[in-house]
Amino acid sequence: MKNIVVIGGGPGGYPAALKAAALGAKVTLVEKNKVGGVCLNCGCIPSKSLLDAAHRFHTVKTISSLCTEQAPAAAQALFELRDWKKIQARQQAATRKLTQGISFLLKKAGVDVLAGEASFKDEKTVLVKMADGSEQTLQCDGIILASGSEAFFPPPFDQIKDKIYDNSTIFDMPALPQTLTIVGGGVIGCEFADLMSALGVAVNVVEMQPRLLPLEDENAARALTQALSKRGVTLYTGISATQVREANGLFTLTLSDGREVTSQAVLAAIGRTVDLSALHMENIGVEWTRKGVRVNPETLQLKDHIYAVGDVNGLFQLAHAATRQGEVAASNLCGVPAVYHNERVPRAIYTSPEVASVGLTRAQAEEKGFTVKSHKSFLLANGRAVAQEQTDGYYELLSDAQTGKLLGAVLVGANATELVHTVSVALAAQMTVQDFKEIIFAHPTFAESLGEACAK
Amino acid sequence: MKNIVVIGGGPGGYPAALKAAALGAKVTLVEKNKVGGVCLNCGCIPSKSLLDAAHRFHTVKTISSLCTEQAPAAAQALFELRDWKKIQARQQAATRKLTQGISFLLKKAGVDVLAGEASFKDEKTVLVKMADGSEQTLQCDGIILASGSEAFFPPPFDQIKDKIYDNSTIFDMPALPQTLTIVGGGVIGCEFADLMSALGVAVNVVEMQPRLLPLEDENAARALTQALSKRGVTLYTGISATQVREANGLFTLTLSDGREVTSQAVLAAIGRTVDLSALHMENIGVEWTRKGVRVNPETLQLKDHIYAVGDVNGLFQLAHAATRQGEVAASNLCGVPAVYHNERVPRAIYTSPEVASVGLTRAQAEEKGFTVKSHKSFLLANGRAVAQEQTDGYYELLSDAQTGKLLGAVLVGANATELVHTVSVALAAQMTVQDFKEIIFAHPTFAESLGEACAK
Repeated sequence: MKNIVVIGGGPGGYPAALKAAALGAKVTLVEKNKVGGVCLNCGCIPSKSLLDAAHRFHTVKTISSLCTEQAPAAAQALFELRDWKKIQARQQAATRKLTQGISFLLKKAGVDVLAGEASFKDEKTVLVKMADGSEQTLQCDGIILASGSEAFFPPPFDQIKDKIYDNSTIFDMPALPQTLTIVGGGVIGCEFADLMSALGVAVNVVEMQPRLLPLEDENAARALTQALSKRGVTLYTGISATQVREANGLFTLTLSDGREVTSQAVLAAIGRTVDLSALHMENIGVEWTRKGVRVNPETLQLKDHIYAVGDVNGLFQLAHAATRQGEVAASNLCGVPAVYHNERVPRAIYTSPEVASVGLTRAQAEEKGFTVKSHKSFLLANGRAVAQEQTDGYYELLSDAQTGKLLGAVLVGANATELVHTVSVALAAQMTVQDFKEIIFAHPTFAESLGEACAK
Repeated sequence: MKNIVVIGGGPGGYPAALKAAALGAKVTLVEKNKVGGVCLNCGCIPSKSLLDAAHRFHTVKTISSLCTEQAPAAAQALFELRDWKKIQARQQAATRKLTQGISFLLKKAGVDVLAGEASFKDEKTVLVKMADGSEQTLQCDGIILASGSEAFFPPPFDQIKDKIYDNSTIFDMPALPQTLTIVGGGVIGCEFADLMSALGVAVNVVEMQPRLLPLEDENAARALTQALSKRGVTLYTGISATQVREANGLFTLTLSDGREVTSQAVLAAIGRTVDLSALHMENIGVEWTRKGVRVNPETLQLKDHIYAVGDVNGLFQLAHAATRQGEVAASNLCGVPAVYHNERVPRAIYTSPEVASVGLTRAQAEEKGFTVKSHKSFLLANGRAVAQEQTDGYYELLSDAQTGKLLGAVLVGANATELVHTVSVALAAQMTVQDFKEIIFAHPTFAESLGEACAK
């Protein structure tokens, strides 16, 4: 029986532990905080709970169009009764329920969970500093490193990082601020801009790159930019913050164009960074940087019987990428060869409109030498979207003009984060546009717009 | 150039006309009411608009859990301001927008639209009685019959059918009743029970069969039954109405078990029936019944150069089935062979929870001799569902135990009607459970539960 140690109990580590246990290994999982990691405890899950609460309040605010004339005042009165403590409690309850679920699964699978901080002694020995100060030494046949990442505070924010929020600590805010400045217009920045503005907070976003979502499709980013602007979010793009000062409970950012932005709270959503200093990587002879360690991108192997998955390997900072990587690494470590495909990882952004993509982007496809054909359908022409007044957005599929083979998709609008998987399946099956056209879509659904895009 | 007449401008007829025009035919479309048919004008689309309005009001009613203590009264006050006239106007605007879209597409394609009532003179001649009383004679090379169906009023409802609503006329109700009795617990009955109760109407449902949704999966029907009961809908199943009388603006139904149900309004959602008497089918030598005409189920051919699509052929009373049939028939008529696959048609019910299915049901699969394996995942364990408090329901996939090939799926819960297409694509690609497990699902999404079901 193989003896395996998994370092980190987040979305990379705990599925790795479960997979290894399922393949017959004796598994010890070391986690210094809570199982579930950032994703479950202070990332994906709590933010989805807050986004849902925000969208519900948005519904309250906009219901007047279906009501008598007295409704706007009544809707505003109800909106004013929103209670951050209760919104927070709901989010904590969701997190607790899911964390318990993971603990149950680990227990059921016979995984030994150690609450402590791991470090390498050598390639087959892990030291664990327990909460009570004692130390345990774990001898093993293989190790999966899934220690994650942490929020990045570049200057000038490094000086006041204890006074501003990052994407983990913002969930613990004691109260909703009246004004919030978000530094960073990537996925996290945009999701918080969306939800905080829907909860009635006046939001500024400062993004150094020329546009929001610099890593995503340009048209998708434009659609989201328009939607956020329309809802009153103030956007500063192509601008950085050069100074930050605090006075009387207010933070003032000096921007690179000389303007100043003042708010009650600041959220740094600038990115995440890897810090492995506590792990003593030198003891296994592995070098690391702030971007993490370098693994074989298909097997996730770091060195001999050591694997690294999730944010720590820098392949893709997404929970579901980490999960698949964890499963693949555990499988390989247990002697069942498996391959991870980074290009099959879908990306999902839970704003209004939602933005989701899978497969190659246009730029990536062109770089690979494809002549790219675009198949696009606007939700303005979609029956369900019109009936539900959710006509913002479009679904676009990309194909190889030569063979008709589907290459990727970008979906912007309602249901994008769910429907993107329809294309994931088509990509896995190597479908052509012609194959995809044969699918019968139920009427009326948003999904019909995928079929309609291909009919063009 | 082929000269084709399409009889009926609903979801079967107008796509047939567009397809024939695209294939080079000269097309005349005859419609006695409005293009878009029942589906668009008084079916799928308006009901989705009402369901969406109802769900928004449900959000208002339940927002108190995220608010301070004064909220329940404020939420109820806002709910009471709901305005049926505005809800109706929104639904009419959606219908109008989509009808205009179809008219535009038909015009752009060069399809001649005649507002009148068609009948057969012979196999190549259609007579059209125009609105102004004049008559036109259309000579043609081929005909596509897409004349649809109408609401069915069996005894005792046939006597008062002008005083009660059917699924077309209910959209024109002058005001919301306080109480509504729905006769029929199929798809339409359940959707209206859901939306009317969410709008504050006290609803009774009377279904002759032992359970709601008698044509759908039993567990799915049970989940919906529980949800409707929990929301206060009174269900009478395994019971028929033997008598109905009207007095003082109230309708009283006598049930087969002797009980009486009284309400301000009655909706007959008992089914739909075909009436071709005005078409003079005898002139083309085709027999018909209340179930319609009999076509070749793959080509949709009725006789020589005459095809029949949609409700009139009794294959599947669903808009998207009609649409695909229309396209296939037009293609065959224009000399481009095409085949319609009835078993690839997804079914979608837009209640809370939603119910959707595709492929074979367990019963159908067993009948075909498969040893059926079930792969089921409950939304209670789904991260997004927990975060958004939408944990009612489950997703179930069925596979052939011998080969692992996917056979079908039943989805119950949030997003079911959209996510069912993920399985549609997998079925079209003839995927196995093993293939499907390789798909990477974004976290957190409802779609993950599809992957999780297969992992079991």
